[in-house]
Amino acid sequence: MKKTSLLENFPPQLPEELIEVLASTNNVRIERIVSHGHTSPEDFWYDQDQDEFVLLLKGKAELEFSDPSKTIMLEQGDSLIIPAHQRHRVSWTKPEIETVWLVVYY
Amino acid sequence: MKKTSLLENFPPQLPEELIEVLASTNNVRIERIVSHGHTSPEDFWYDQDQDEFVLLLKGKAELEFSDPSKTIMLEQGDSLIIPAHQRHRVSWTKPEIETVWLVVYY
Repeated sequence: MKKTSLLENFPPQLPEELIEVLASTNNVRIERIVSHGHTSPEDFWYDQDQDEFVLLLKGKAELEFSDPSKTIMLEQGDSLIIPAHQRHRVSWTKPEIETVWLVVYY
Repeated sequence: MKKTSLLENFPPQLPEELIEVLASTNNVRIERIVSHGHTSPEDFWYDQDQDEFVLLLKGKAELEFSDPSKTIMLEQGDSLIIPAHQRHRVSWTKPEIETVWLVVYY
C-alpha cells in the first residue's frame, strides 16, 4: 500500500495526453489524465458504454457536448457525471499549465 | 448534467462527518466526505468487502492500519488504494480546516 500524489510526477514534455490507470476491475476503471493544452481532435466525440465521473484536480478545461449542444467549463474541484453514450469532447484545456483529471468509468 | 464543486458547499457546522454519495451502482459507490478535525472512534476499524480508492482533495489526514501496524499521512492530491478487508481508521484530520476526501468503493 503506497500513497501516490496525483498532483506531481508530470513528465517534462507532454506531446500527448498522459493517461494512467490507477485501478481497474471488470466493472470500473479509475484513471489520472494529464493534459497540457491538449484538446480532442476536431469532430471527434467520445461515445462510451459506461457512465463517467470526471473531477478536475488542477488547471481548467472546457467540455463540449453534442446533444443538446453545449459547453461546460470545469475549474479545480469541479466534478461532473457524463452518462453513457452522451457524446462529448475536450474542446479546450488551459495552455500554460497542466490540467489534471481524475476519471472513473463505471 | 450539472457540474458540482467538491471544494465548496460545506455546511457552517460539522458536528459529524458529512458523507455524500455522488454516484452509485451495484458494483461501485463514489462519495465525497468532509471532515473537520473528525477521527474514527478509538478502537474502531473499517473492514470492507470492497477495494477502496481514496483521494485527499483538501486538508490533511492520517490513516492508521492494523496489520501490519502503520500510519500514512495524506496531503492534498495524495491517493491510496486500500484493499478489501485491510482494517483501517482515520486517526487524525487537520482541526483548523475542512478535510475533503473523494472515495471510490469498487
